[in-house]
Amino acid sequence: MWLLYQFPLCPFSRKLRILLAEKGVGYEPRRESPWLRRDEFLQMNPAGQTPVMVNSERPAALPMIDSMAICEYFEETVDKASMLGGTSADRAEIRRLVTWFDTFFYRDITAPLLKERMEKRLVLRESPDAGRLREAMKAAVAHLDYTDYLLDNRKWIAGSTISLADLAAAAQISIADYLGGIDWKSHETTKRWYVGMKSRPSFRPLLAERMEVVSPHADYEKLDL
Amino acid sequence: MWLLYQFPLCPFSRKLRILLAEKGVGYEPRRESPWLRRDEFLQMNPAGQTPVMVNSERPAALPMIDSMAICEYFEETVDKASMLGGTSADRAEIRRLVTWFDTFFYRDITAPLLKERMEKRLVLRESPDAGRLREAMKAAVAHLDYTDYLLDNRKWIAGSTISLADLAAAAQISIADYLGGIDWKSHETTKRWYVGMKSRPSFRPLLAERMEVVSPHADYEKLDL
Repeated sequence: MWLLYQFPLCPFSRKLRILLAEKGVGYEPRRESPWLRRDEFLQMNPAGQTPVMVNSERPAALPMIDSMAICEYFEETVDKASMLGGTSADRAEIRRLVTWFDTFFYRDITAPLLKERMEKRLVLRESPDAGRLREAMKAAVAHLDYTDYLLDNRKWIAGSTISLADLAAAAQISIADYLGGIDWKSHETTKRWYVGMKSRPSFRPLLAERMEVVSPHADYEKLDL
Repeated sequence: MWLLYQFPLCPFSRKLRILLAEKGVGYEPRRESPWLRRDEFLQMNPAGQTPVMVNSERPAALPMIDSMAICEYFEETVDKASMLGGTSADRAEIRRLVTWFDTFFYRDITAPLLKERMEKRLVLRESPDAGRLREAMKAAVAHLDYTDYLLDNRKWIAGSTISLADLAAAAQISIADYLGGIDWKSHETTKRWYVGMKSRPSFRPLLAERMEVVSPHADYEKLDL
């Protein structure tokens, strides 16, 4: 059995969980709060980040660490629902856009929202910084302009078929949306694509999960935004 | 002909250039200073980062962006000198460690050194912040303790054969070393491995390159540290 260490608002775990559901790979989620820096978790992953996957039947095997490395592993080992399809050039474009969302969208939007609206409430017991929230929401507008541009020219984020780039984008956007960082008006193209992603059986169950203390806005789960 | 947009102290371009040399892929380096945010470059790569690779014979093809995406492309298309070998689990460990160096070593060590010792001199015309330099050098000690630990248990960074993880590690460490951020004493294991990396024909020519205004320390190119 695969054990998956994660928490409900971890965008990297969410991307991986959508992939596992698409591929029909079963796993047991294990709640991990990386901000607690639990010794046993740091021993598994010195970087201290979720997700981490462990095969409970192979205790001698190395834990799998880093969401992209884990996604590549399941792409290589499970044929069903390939999310890195096409030519090598197509895959380069998919991987570029996964990095785009995992690195830049996360840095500019998801990370500051998690810091201000989750960590400050849960751990630091401080009020959020209104200036940093405004900056993150401004960055979200620029990022959704870019996804609008991509989706005006392609059916899916990285090309003509769904790929890991769509999963990475939907994962980051959904956490930012949970935390009230997305203003959907004037982003019709991305909204239409996102409603499609939300209605996938791989994704819908994740939208029902809640993080203690932090609630999403009223329309977060809705399919007709 | 492949064109490679980069600058001499870009650790991500350096990792890619070592890979291309190992594989015998020719390219024409094009000097790009990402901090200038040149319009034509931002049009190619909205993330504004090096490296970017373009095939001059296929102007309609998308530019290739993100060093890991580009490395995966050449792994897939050029058999020679595989740097992502072994089983899928072996590859997961290689990719984890590439992320370790590209993300954490870069964030804690290479990025602050580049900011304080290159960007402040070249662009901002300010003096470096001694506190931030001390922090980066302290982080380097902790990171080299980790590479010592890895190399005490394995022949190469990610396992029994050389891989992209060694290239990523050597690229980051060499830029940090150029900028005076590495204290080699009490890191014999990593030093021995690094001397081996330095003497590879794929790597040696890069050590002769210089960045204007910023010079490396006297032992930077030496093979007997």
